[in-house]
Amino acid sequence: MLRLSPPGNLRLNQTNIFDINFGGTEANVAVSLAGLGIHSAYMTRLPDNMIGRSALEFLRKWGVDTSMISLGGSRMGLYYLENGASFRGSQVIYDRAGSAVSEAELEDFDFEEALRGASWLHVSGITPALSDSCCEIVRELLILARKLNITTSFDLNYRKKLWDSDKATQVTLDLVKNVDIIMGNEEDAFNMLGIKSSFSHDIVEERYKRVSEEIFTKISGLKYFITTLRESISADVNRWSGMIYDGSQFYRSKVYDINVIDRVGAGDAFCAGFIYEFLRTTDIKKSIDFAAAASAFKHTIIGDVNVFSENEIRSLLDGNIYGRINR
Amino acid sequence: MLRLSPPGNLRLNQTNIFDINFGGTEANVAVSLAGLGIHSAYMTRLPDNMIGRSALEFLRKWGVDTSMISLGGSRMGLYYLENGASFRGSQVIYDRAGSAVSEAELEDFDFEEALRGASWLHVSGITPALSDSCCEIVRELLILARKLNITTSFDLNYRKKLWDSDKATQVTLDLVKNVDIIMGNEEDAFNMLGIKSSFSHDIVEERYKRVSEEIFTKISGLKYFITTLRESISADVNRWSGMIYDGSQFYRSKVYDINVIDRVGAGDAFCAGFIYEFLRTTDIKKSIDFAAAASAFKHTIIGDVNVFSENEIRSLLDGNIYGRINR
Amino acid sequence: MLRLSPPGNLRLNQTNIFDINFGGTEANVAVSLAGLGIHSAYMTRLPDNMIGRSALEFLRKWGVDTSMISLGGSRMGLYYLENGASFRGSQVIYDRAGSAVSEAELEDFDFEEALRGASWLHVSGITPALSDSCCEIVRELLILARKLNITTSFDLNYRKKLWDSDKATQVTLDLVKNVDIIMGNEEDAFNMLGIKSSFSHDIVEERYKRVSEEIFTKISGLKYFITTLRESISADVNRWSGMIYDGSQFYRSKVYDINVIDRVGAGDAFCAGFIYEFLRTTDIKKSIDFAAAASAFKHTIIGDVNVFSENEIRSLLDGNIYGRINR
Amino acid sequence: MLRLSPPGNLRLNQTNIFDINFGGTEANVAVSLAGLGIHSAYMTRLPDNMIGRSALEFLRKWGVDTSMISLGGSRMGLYYLENGASFRGSQVIYDRAGSAVSEAELEDFDFEEALRGASWLHVSGITPALSDSCCEIVRELLILARKLNITTSFDLNYRKKLWDSDKATQVTLDLVKNVDIIMGNEEDAFNMLGIKSSFSHDIVEERYKRVSEEIFTKISGLKYFITTLRESISADVNRWSGMIYDGSQFYRSKVYDINVIDRVGAGDAFCAGFIYEFLRTTDIKKSIDFAAAASAFKHTIIGDVNVFSENEIRSLLDGNIYGRINR
Amino acid sequence: MLRLSPPGNLRLNQTNIFDINFGGTEANVAVSLAGLGIHSAYMTRLPDNMIGRSALEFLRKWGVDTSMISLGGSRMGLYYLENGASFRGSQVIYDRAGSAVSEAELEDFDFEEALRGASWLHVSGITPALSDSCCEIVRELLILARKLNITTSFDLNYRKKLWDSDKATQVTLDLVKNVDIIMGNEEDAFNMLGIKSSFSHDIVEERYKRVSEEIFTKISGLKYFITTLRESISADVNRWSGMIYDGSQFYRSKVYDINVIDRVGAGDAFCAGFIYEFLRTTDIKKSIDFAAAASAFKHTIIGDVNVFSENEIRSLLDGNIYGRINR
Amino acid sequence: MLRLSPPGNLRLNQTNIFDINFGGTEANVAVSLAGLGIHSAYMTRLPDNMIGRSALEFLRKWGVDTSMISLGGSRMGLYYLENGASFRGSQVIYDRAGSAVSEAELEDFDFEEALRGASWLHVSGITPALSDSCCEIVRELLILARKLNITTSFDLNYRKKLWDSDKATQVTLDLVKNVDIIMGNEEDAFNMLGIKSSFSHDIVEERYKRVSEEIFTKISGLKYFITTLRESISADVNRWSGMIYDGSQFYRSKVYDINVIDRVGAGDAFCAGFIYEFLRTTDIKKSIDFAAAASAFKHTIIGDVNVFSENEIRSLLDGNIYGRINR
Repeated sequence: MLRLSPPGNLRLNQTNIFDINFGGTEANVAVSLAGLGIHSAYMTRLPDNMIGRSALEFLRKWGVDTSMISLGGSRMGLYYLENGASFRGSQVIYDRAGSAVSEAELEDFDFEEALRGASWLHVSGITPALSDSCCEIVRELLILARKLNITTSFDLNYRKKLWDSDKATQVTLDLVKNVDIIMGNEEDAFNMLGIKSSFSHDIVEERYKRVSEEIFTKISGLKYFITTLRESISADVNRWSGMIYDGSQFYRSKVYDINVIDRVGAGDAFCAGFIYEFLRTTDIKKSIDFAAAASAFKHTIIGDVNVFSENEIRSLLDGNIYGRINR
Repeated sequence: MLRLSPPGNLRLNQTNIFDINFGGTEANVAVSLAGLGIHSAYMTRLPDNMIGRSALEFLRKWGVDTSMISLGGSRMGLYYLENGASFRGSQVIYDRAGSAVSEAELEDFDFEEALRGASWLHVSGITPALSDSCCEIVRELLILARKLNITTSFDLNYRKKLWDSDKATQVTLDLVKNVDIIMGNEEDAFNMLGIKSSFSHDIVEERYKRVSEEIFTKISGLKYFITTLRESISADVNRWSGMIYDGSQFYRSKVYDINVIDRVGAGDAFCAGFIYEFLRTTDIKKSIDFAAAASAFKHTIIGDVNVFSENEIRSLLDGNIYGRINR
Repeated sequence: MLRLSPPGNLRLNQTNIFDINFGGTEANVAVSLAGLGIHSAYMTRLPDNMIGRSALEFLRKWGVDTSMISLGGSRMGLYYLENGASFRGSQVIYDRAGSAVSEAELEDFDFEEALRGASWLHVSGITPALSDSCCEIVRELLILARKLNITTSFDLNYRKKLWDSDKATQVTLDLVKNVDIIMGNEEDAFNMLGIKSSFSHDIVEERYKRVSEEIFTKISGLKYFITTLRESISADVNRWSGMIYDGSQFYRSKVYDINVIDRVGAGDAFCAGFIYEFLRTTDIKKSIDFAAAASAFKHTIIGDVNVFSENEIRSLLDGNIYGRINR
Repeated sequence: MLRLSPPGNLRLNQTNIFDINFGGTEANVAVSLAGLGIHSAYMTRLPDNMIGRSALEFLRKWGVDTSMISLGGSRMGLYYLENGASFRGSQVIYDRAGSAVSEAELEDFDFEEALRGASWLHVSGITPALSDSCCEIVRELLILARKLNITTSFDLNYRKKLWDSDKATQVTLDLVKNVDIIMGNEEDAFNMLGIKSSFSHDIVEERYKRVSEEIFTKISGLKYFITTLRESISADVNRWSGMIYDGSQFYRSKVYDINVIDRVGAGDAFCAGFIYEFLRTTDIKKSIDFAAAASAFKHTIIGDVNVFSENEIRSLLDGNIYGRINR
Repeated sequence: MLRLSPPGNLRLNQTNIFDINFGGTEANVAVSLAGLGIHSAYMTRLPDNMIGRSALEFLRKWGVDTSMISLGGSRMGLYYLENGASFRGSQVIYDRAGSAVSEAELEDFDFEEALRGASWLHVSGITPALSDSCCEIVRELLILARKLNITTSFDLNYRKKLWDSDKATQVTLDLVKNVDIIMGNEEDAFNMLGIKSSFSHDIVEERYKRVSEEIFTKISGLKYFITTLRESISADVNRWSGMIYDGSQFYRSKVYDINVIDRVGAGDAFCAGFIYEFLRTTDIKKSIDFAAAASAFKHTIIGDVNVFSENEIRSLLDGNIYGRINR
Repeated sequence: MLRLSPPGNLRLNQTNIFDINFGGTEANVAVSLAGLGIHSAYMTRLPDNMIGRSALEFLRKWGVDTSMISLGGSRMGLYYLENGASFRGSQVIYDRAGSAVSEAELEDFDFEEALRGASWLHVSGITPALSDSCCEIVRELLILARKLNITTSFDLNYRKKLWDSDKATQVTLDLVKNVDIIMGNEEDAFNMLGIKSSFSHDIVEERYKRVSEEIFTKISGLKYFITTLRESISADVNRWSGMIYDGSQFYRSKVYDINVIDRVGAGDAFCAGFIYEFLRTTDIKKSIDFAAAASAFKHTIIGDVNVFSENEIRSLLDGNIYGRINR
């Protein structure tokens, strides 16, 4: 998606310029992984005009393999982002109806080719909500990935403007049969998996644990449920961490106190961080720690995508949290 | 519509900011008229979010009466504009499918109220192309205006991405039954009125005369056919004038040599200039001269809308064409 | 007034561009009220040139009725604003001598027309300080408003560069005879009303209570005295609330902790918030709470004017103070 | 003066930022001379605030000796500049009433000190129009300069908003008794010297010759009358040259065809060029040629001041007029 | 190289921001070819820091294969570019001593791998001038390319600040033994090939023909000599065409009249255009025509690189030279 | 040095513009002193091109005497600065090899002339690291200053990319024989003076005291050792103070809590503050307090140089730390 935002703290009706960024949940994951040195390909459909080409060039800049992107369709989906401050929260106005990707068809892609040699398939719960054919594409990809023994992850990402909870739950519960790792938060679990936790604990971590356990009860074959825990003090100050449940044990990462520059895309950065470290180590604790550090960095830069080197992330993990100048 | 354009001469894939403007053919006419001191109301539908509100505030800034604008619908139509240079023409990418106005229904507006006390109704041929209900709205407005003895003008504005020539001609020939003044160029006449002139003269003015005569043959009751004549030397240099035919005589305005800053909206500025001076004088020669001068100014400023005072336009008409500094 | 400020944190002698805003205490109140849906007219005098027109267009954009603005006079008053940071306070350099409004005469306006149907008249203590004729205009307006049973509010706004305390007190005590509600802080009360409180309490709230009581002793017929309480931790962090005294009881609003983007105009936003809610409910507690919330928002945006919808303000009142993103 | 202008081709009511420049006729001359390596001091009065300091720092940046500038007074004079295009001329809105310099008094400066060791005194006809004391300052300076055998030049610069022609002529004819060189154009000569040429020749050069001769008739002791000849094709294209008359002979420089970036300050650049080359050579032909070339350059850069090195100007004089790239 | 330029027409000492672009003669050729759909790899050395990475990401954005770029070395070479206007020519200040590429060694690259499957090798005469090892790299590449029957082109690009004419000629005459196509202008031929044409014809085309013939006499085995002909009317207006000599016949392309936005990189765009069309057709007339059109476009955009689609270039070749708007 | 930094919080590879500043340790000290009203001359070598001239003009703007600056040499040293946020530290990439100043020779300057009438000589430990001739220049200056009884201060400023600790220590211990005051931190003392403190106390202040004592043991004749104490909470929040040791007693300034806008140059601002107040009072406590306040201000503005008036600094010393607005 094309992201249009007023510079700095201006409101949408105060500006006469928009800063341009590109993003989208799977794209963000792909960029982060490419930045960490992983061969990372992104499959989507972009309009065959200068705006679609700009998006493609943006991805290419950050090292994403764009050879599987199909060109065509009507328009570029976009969203407007107004940055918040203090108690004034950031505002997102989506405008993605009729986007090129929502018009994508199964025959626009060659799935066998796309997954050849792949070790991981990551999809977002936004995609099946875009159109029936998008849903079909996700389903076919997940089935094929399972057949090829490719690890699959699914980021729930419930978007209430795209579908209602009932439809979302029905579709998602079917899709995640072929998924190894589910990512999401409490609200996603409620809306996309029908997890209606009876346990209303004041402590977020406790509530999250109950949700995790219910998910494992409901979805057989799931390997991990991962979530991020965000405590919003204000639009400017957030506390941030990640957690994982493997069906028997919980692990929570270090908590980061963050002066927020831009929080959009943090969840995607978290997914990418997890995938990267899990591919390298298969150690879930290390992976959650790496994911939390990588995505903490996301909050300190503008834009949906998060590009930090492994060295930078490891340095944060090593405790270099004081923001000293590096000459 | 929201207009997004890279600053200066950057291409769409070279920029990371967009300059924001608002425009749209009837809106542009309304703004010019308001700037000239005429009470001018604009009827449309804008999404009830910060982008729609920004458009409304833009119109209000320029003095347009926005009380008849209906809020609601899905999205703000938009277009991307890349400025050309030399032989590189400007590029427009439209993205208006599903816009709030295309979803407007007859019941969103109170036509009686809208036309109460009005002396002129101006519509564009783009609107009926947006949706069936938009077409119906235009038809009803024209019929009501005729009933109320309000002068009606119709700017053909053929847009090939919205409908094909056959459909356009069928619809337009029906609509213009209730129209006093048609504005448009040779290509519009071909596509919207089915004027397939057999006379292919090298001289634009001569061709235009034949087209005008054919239009009067085809459409009974028409009072005037007006056109602008643009000679594009390059994206930077244009020659510009206007012409009118009243069924018996032709009149062509002075020709302006222009270093083009931004040509978008020139036709709308021309319409507004004509309406303004015609309302004041009912002298078609004066009106065409005024229209040509007013719209020549449009080329010298950025944005779709043209706001110049009557004094400025009269000064140009008086021959102050040398661009001297005014201290 | 035209406001010129370096972008971001640059000092006035570090920048080569100025961000442009328009403001002025009554204008700011008018804009906020218009934004909340109240018909709000602003009476002033603006120079009849492109700068004056820009100011008028700015007001019109935000929905203010500009029909009572008189065009003419020498120049646009302006001020330079440098944004502070940490212990470096923001700097304001006024340049308003000889402004068009200071040259306004009684005969530039039609007071009967201006107040026809009005329910509220709000004036600032800056205006009578600008010139003798401005003072006369304020006096006449207040007298007429009283005669017409229009509620009147007077924001003290002492400006030491415009007049000394003795002159200010003499004039103001006379003017406020026809005022229902006085707004101001301790320093204003000292300089504009001659309140030389003997009680020097360490706690701001206590001092304010003594000042309020003295004001009611001194000014008969006053209905409310309202103030804002600002605790400046640094240029970036402020605590903010409002208080009211009705001659017998005090009420203080919730206190907001704010990361300050721009504090200019907060007092005006407070006045507007009070007027809006008081007109709706006549409940002084609700009105102070609404005023405090509305004006807390002002600190989070750039510019003198504060445009937030009733929904946004009520959401803050309802405790949504964590600045979460709204998708 | 502070100059505020919208970026690029935006109109004054289309922008939300102003580009900042500093200028003023004598300041512009001083900067050009300093840039050419001449010790150049500028005498004025600037307000003792951050805006006045910015102006002083601007002058210091360009190498002007600011030690004779007096700090104090109310405000910085300023002007708004809107850039024209094609037949749309640039617009200047002056706002200099009450500026610090207009309040300057004789005792703010030490004239003996100021002129010690000086070889040239240049004044503008704008200064005596600002206030009586400014007029007195100019008079005293010219008298003292004559006494000290310092060459004096006077640039007429009639500004109709500051005084009428009668007053201007009366004052100027008195002041120029102590002037060696007068600069100005036909209109200046009319308004400031009362030259009401009966000879209305179509050819500018011929008219100018008659004006020159009349001036020499009227003002005894004058050594040279210098003028610039500007032919405005459009706001973007000007033809530019200079001419001199020494009481017996005329000399006209090469004519430059210019794509105008910014013409403000060209006359001042011309004065500076003349002074520089005349000081070096006392050859009036060379001096006019140099002046024309130097000031032709002014049109190609933004801002009031013209800083080009002697090498750059000589290169243009040598015929390098094709704008080739220099690597 | 990193290119730093003031925005618009500001001089280098007037700006406080630099626009950032990346370029370099071979890089520019590579980008143009990638934009035309040719697999295009660029071999250089970039510093292993965020500036070097930005350059690499820039190339990747435009589709260039960066897999052969070696990371390391001290610094990014850079240049400052000031845009000219009218007779004021653009200024380039090079700062490339000690750049990473100048420190490149033979062992930083795998030439066999680099040329595997390649059909064309393009080098610039700048590279051998950077350092002895750079010269050696070029030599080895040319020898290997010849061995592998890869077409080789050499753009003379004499840079007087890097080496003197004698040294340049000695080195170049040796290098071009393995070159099929030489590109360059008259001055390059003089300085890099020792062509001291006795024939000083006024007509550029005639002089060029003599130079071409002398080159063929001097260098055996050469297939084509190609040049661009630029006529500089001013910094803003240039006439532009290309010419080729195959040892027996001359062919000159159409001449383009251009309003210049940015002429840097035009020669590289010409080389790329020639390579593209020659690879497709082996028709030298078509190739020169295509090259001239492609590089004419370069003048209309900002930046060193030229990215236009084949469709856009063919449209210009087809005579669409009037810069009409494309909706 | 030229400093190039992305606007706001953008990373170096996210921006397409650089903000331009100039700085360098001694230059920063000179600017601060000039801003405080001290005659302050800066001795360096700048390239004789528009970039070097821009640096010189920058210094001149801020009132520094540039008459001793030698023009010539190859290039302007520069550095890239990326602003950090939260735990993401700012990044500096130096690019100063081969800078004009590193090529400076003894004969480029007239030391006798430079120090005539001077009361203080301040040098940085960066300069001797640039080249052997730079080292020689510093040595000669220090020796001459001592001979002339000029107070000398030496800011250690170890830069590990310029030399290793052994070389640095050997050179510095020799240079500081002629120095009255050394400035630096613990790490500088280790690398430049060979202070390998055995005492590793947790409390920074205690460690610093041990270091100070060791320095006095090692360097005879030293009068003061001064340091700044920075506690980095995050890139956005720092605590800042200064400390001095005179061989017998310690004094530490007030500690400032700072929301950091830009910390680069704070140490130089500290040196300048100390020099200014020490020249005025010779009171080391007052001088350290003044230095700490002056340099605390540096953190609140963008750029390397710190220009605050004595009034502003004294106001902070007087406890005006709440960042209230000044109207």
